[in-house]
Amino acid sequence: MKLTFSATSPFARKVRISAIELGLIDKIEFVPTTVTPTTMNEDYSSHVNPLRKLPALILDDGSTIVDSYVITEYLDDLAGGGKLIPASGPKRWQVKTEHAIVQGMLDAMLLCRYEKMLRPEALRWPKWVDDQWDRAWHGLKWFEERPDTFSRPLDIVQIGLVCALGYADFRFPSCGWRDAFPRLVAFNDKMMQRDSVKATLPPAA
Amino acid sequence: MKLTFSATSPFARKVRISAIELGLIDKIEFVPTTVTPTTMNEDYSSHVNPLRKLPALILDDGSTIVDSYVITEYLDDLAGGGKLIPASGPKRWQVKTEHAIVQGMLDAMLLCRYEKMLRPEALRWPKWVDDQWDRAWHGLKWFEERPDTFSRPLDIVQIGLVCALGYADFRFPSCGWRDAFPRLVAFNDKMMQRDSVKATLPPAA
Repeated sequence: MKLTFSATSPFARKVRISAIELGLIDKIEFVPTTVTPTTMNEDYSSHVNPLRKLPALILDDGSTIVDSYVITEYLDDLAGGGKLIPASGPKRWQVKTEHAIVQGMLDAMLLCRYEKMLRPEALRWPKWVDDQWDRAWHGLKWFEERPDTFSRPLDIVQIGLVCALGYADFRFPSCGWRDAFPRLVAFNDKMMQRDSVKATLPPAA
Repeated sequence: MKLTFSATSPFARKVRISAIELGLIDKIEFVPTTVTPTTMNEDYSSHVNPLRKLPALILDDGSTIVDSYVITEYLDDLAGGGKLIPASGPKRWQVKTEHAIVQGMLDAMLLCRYEKMLRPEALRWPKWVDDQWDRAWHGLKWFEERPDTFSRPLDIVQIGLVCALGYADFRFPSCGWRDAFPRLVAFNDKMMQRDSVKATLPPAA
């Protein structure tokens, strides 16, 4: 199977870390792919993902699996199931909910990035960036105030969260999350000891 | 349990249709809620969903389940499992992938809506709207060209898709999807015969 990815995509990074942790990394061929909002890509839209997003997992029969969450659940299932996502019970819904929050935080950060870097300067709307950043920031606060997330065995929430923090460091280095959220700092330091996390850091900005 | 929702949210509509089809509608108290980008809501951000999005399912113990996909999967599980989302096998990944595409189509439509209605007129960027609309449109094309989606027993993809088409009618009535996608028209007409779909139509724009 093949994974479309870029080294800077936090969504692709989540799948890469998951694949390493699940022991599946050698089964995946990584296909560097560039997708940029406002740049059309008829081939990718028609045959891989009409949303024109990364990552997409292309199976040997040519069918596609998206998005990064579904890919991770698929890999987890391939690895036996219940590894990074609890198979049943209340923990299952807690993990899925927390992961949806992390996903939304990353969506919000990317919208901030597009507003600040892609949109012509004269058309930028600070209230929009403030609004999106507020979502990401409240997400960080959410986890800071619910530290049981950090003490569970490794799961998709922790992997997603370290990707969100890494993306904040990569694209918003002066946002100040380390000063505001000491528990997240300790969590991030602990996660950074994993080879999977170190090996997938985004390149220097 | 309670569901935060608005009558105009296509994501909330997906959950409402699912709850009706799963026979769980009477177990849910519906709480009309307004969330608007650029309008902060500290209480909702801190206690319900830091992403400030609808819908959220609030369980009797006060914990929250988000997003609309996770809520639907939770309700499906409550109803016995495997009703709207196949429990295993290749169909499971197909349905989850197609649902992720529908979700992204709706995200793109909402970004178009915010750009056209919420953002000050002088700050609008037509290329952004064109880009987001292209994603939604390619999503419609994706399903038009893969009509086996329409012939399966009712599932979360079909429910999501009828919500996306309803949202297109509601917010983008001149977008022309009916002229471009005849199979989607037939699918939508068929879905409109369901009480769950009729009862949850958005109000007149």
